[in-house]
Amino acid sequence: MVRYFRQPDVTGDRRRVMALDVLAAGLDAVEPGAAVRRALRRDGDRLHIEGRSYDLRRFRRVWVVGAGKASAPMAAAVEDVLGDRVTGGHVTVKYGYTAPTGRVALHEAGHPVPDEAGVAGSREIVALLHQAGEHDLVIAVISGGGSALMTLPVEGVSLADMQALTEALLRSGAPITALNTVRKHLSQVKGGQLARRAYPATLITLIVSDVVGSPLDVIASGPTVPDPTTAADARAVLKRYGVWDSAPESIRRHLDMAAAGQKPDTPKPGDPIFERVQNVIVADNSRAAEAAAARAQALGLNVLIATTYLEGEAREVARVLTGIGREIATYGRPVGRPACVLFGGETTVTVRGTGRGGRNQELALAAALALAGTSDILLASLATDGTDGPTDAAGGLVDGGTVARAEGLGLSAQAALDNNDAYTLLTATGDLLVTGPTNTNVNDLIALFVW
Amino acid sequence: MVRYFRQPDVTGDRRRVMALDVLAAGLDAVEPGAAVRRALRRDGDRLHIEGRSYDLRRFRRVWVVGAGKASAPMAAAVEDVLGDRVTGGHVTVKYGYTAPTGRVALHEAGHPVPDEAGVAGSREIVALLHQAGEHDLVIAVISGGGSALMTLPVEGVSLADMQALTEALLRSGAPITALNTVRKHLSQVKGGQLARRAYPATLITLIVSDVVGSPLDVIASGPTVPDPTTAADARAVLKRYGVWDSAPESIRRHLDMAAAGQKPDTPKPGDPIFERVQNVIVADNSRAAEAAAARAQALGLNVLIATTYLEGEAREVARVLTGIGREIATYGRPVGRPACVLFGGETTVTVRGTGRGGRNQELALAAALALAGTSDILLASLATDGTDGPTDAAGGLVDGGTVARAEGLGLSAQAALDNNDAYTLLTATGDLLVTGPTNTNVNDLIALFVW
Repeated sequence: MVRYFRQPDVTGDRRRVMALDVLAAGLDAVEPGAAVRRALRRDGDRLHIEGRSYDLRRFRRVWVVGAGKASAPMAAAVEDVLGDRVTGGHVTVKYGYTAPTGRVALHEAGHPVPDEAGVAGSREIVALLHQAGEHDLVIAVISGGGSALMTLPVEGVSLADMQALTEALLRSGAPITALNTVRKHLSQVKGGQLARRAYPATLITLIVSDVVGSPLDVIASGPTVPDPTTAADARAVLKRYGVWDSAPESIRRHLDMAAAGQKPDTPKPGDPIFERVQNVIVADNSRAAEAAAARAQALGLNVLIATTYLEGEAREVARVLTGIGREIATYGRPVGRPACVLFGGETTVTVRGTGRGGRNQELALAAALALAGTSDILLASLATDGTDGPTDAAGGLVDGGTVARAEGLGLSAQAALDNNDAYTLLTATGDLLVTGPTNTNVNDLIALFVW
Repeated sequence: MVRYFRQPDVTGDRRRVMALDVLAAGLDAVEPGAAVRRALRRDGDRLHIEGRSYDLRRFRRVWVVGAGKASAPMAAAVEDVLGDRVTGGHVTVKYGYTAPTGRVALHEAGHPVPDEAGVAGSREIVALLHQAGEHDLVIAVISGGGSALMTLPVEGVSLADMQALTEALLRSGAPITALNTVRKHLSQVKGGQLARRAYPATLITLIVSDVVGSPLDVIASGPTVPDPTTAADARAVLKRYGVWDSAPESIRRHLDMAAAGQKPDTPKPGDPIFERVQNVIVADNSRAAEAAAARAQALGLNVLIATTYLEGEAREVARVLTGIGREIATYGRPVGRPACVLFGGETTVTVRGTGRGGRNQELALAAALALAGTSDILLASLATDGTDGPTDAAGGLVDGGTVARAEGLGLSAQAALDNNDAYTLLTATGDLLVTGPTNTNVNDLIALFVW
């Protein structure tokens, strides 16, 4: 067994063990607690982080705030590093995503649709920041899911209105960047407003990124980051995705007034409040890919990180990735055999069938079809949070024999793909990746091997 | 102006000139005549080709046969190399795809739906091979389109039946490999049967490949290559793509009998007739990519050939390719700046709108959307035959400013993509690639630049 992975025993297959080992190294590198401990180092009265150094004697109190699915282990790690210098704090996590903390209070709340518990947690954070002053240090622990979890609507907009709008936007197929543009302009904390509330305290934000390319202003709706978007942009998103007309009246009224300059705007790039803010990404897809690459290299493979900006329809992306595998197999380029090519990002699935699966399983199944009959090529696609779509699997690990194994069981891989039923097929062929929750989320990691 | 390219003047833009220069080098390498002259060398009485050498004194007569869109310049090049040693021959080309030849007769015929002229040309070839003997050398010039152009149905199946079936299969969305499996088992010349007819003459086949991965048995339905497929496979294709029930009775009867072993089969791998056959690919996508790579390197760029097996839905492929561009721009990997990454293959477009375009234009437009607002990234996608879809363009050349240029003209790049209308949009923004016919076809060549 390779750590993290619980699927059918692969110890008889040296290549599969190696593939899992490479992915596990990627996961190790983005474990949120370890990532915080690596980034944030205390040396007596000095706190070091990414090229900056803080004198802890300057601060009377140290607060920990934040929200996100990985924020509990992040808060615990901050406590580990700062010990009794932590005064207290409030962090909101998804129901069940807890970790043992000391003085920092955890609030469990709803995700992806916000609930009252999330609002209550946000009120605690706002109240705490309200009494923080120039001699306070605030450390924010932000991760994916933080946008829904840290919800505090603008005055006049109710939580029920926000819930209705969020559900409509999720159904409309709007991408997370569009959703977050809207959330920023209906919130009292997003889009840099948490930083405004912390001012004049010193603010260090530690971030685990679940957004492709790690744009600071998009992750968890950038609560401590200058906001380049406007209320007019938010209104345009609602119109573009067809939810403006059905949006609650309170929301339309607020955005119309904000777009007309009759409401305070989110803080923009150049705002002096950000001089007291340091935003640091402690874990993201790129670090997972780099750690996986280092492990593959240590195992004697020739390694290439092709991209950590992988996007597109999963089944089509699979064809491009396997095309690179065939190039290596035939021509020994772009990298010589034995090779490991790494890809990171987040694909999408347009559901047309009635089966079960997730984007990583679907990508793996499409890759299996493209690789059918080849030898010496293997592709593993992993959701780093351990949850791929509405299944208990994390992805798939396929090779040139997957389709034949399915046929031997009387199953058609093509029919399964046509029905978005990768889970059923990969379960039958023994090609599922299963980890359970990994406590982190830096999107997906895909490793292509050519021996 | 860069040779081949006729689009709006780019001489003011050093980067675009460089991009066209790289693509032009790719085209140079696969010009069919030049490719034949490079592969086939005569030294007095010796004829050299790819590791083998033939004593021309052994042959009383030298014949040139073949079919394909690039076969006229190939035949002319064989005449150049062999001079008066060429006795004569028959080559079938698409209407208008001629080149000046001497003793080799050209027959113009229909493509992609075969016609009587193609059958007449094939009859001439078969008659010629019938009287070729052990002391004859036959040089076949085969290129894309050869399958439709060299049509000679089995006895009992009429040309009208083949036309009806070909049209039904083209409409069904069956890929070229599936189409060619069917054609082989309804033909007197495909699937290695041309080689059987040439036997016991010595046969050299020169091939310009228009199939991704250059599988010899698929290009032009492999007339001189062992056929791994069976009549049962052909029948299964017709059933899978839903055209079996509507197929002409004569075709269903023939395939049923052939599948039952009541008709002679195509020659299979291991058949001794192939001991007298040498199949040589003189030009394919890989050689175009290599020549483009060499030119990019000479221009000072860091070069990577990512794959020559590129397949998938054009707009989704674009997202993966631009993701690699963003990786280079951000992290300097998988190759450092200034970089040129090359891709070859053939994407597909699922048409849902009513606009005009082709797979390369659509890929370019989708890339423009993914690159909007970036700087220093450029993507060029080129149909090497100069004809991208039913347009007079060969592809597109886009960058981070394409979408903004469209907006400046009141046009929406997203709306154009939604309507499969890349031609109209790229024409307006000045981002179309236009070459006119290039006289070759090795699929598509895509160059991604990051300065």
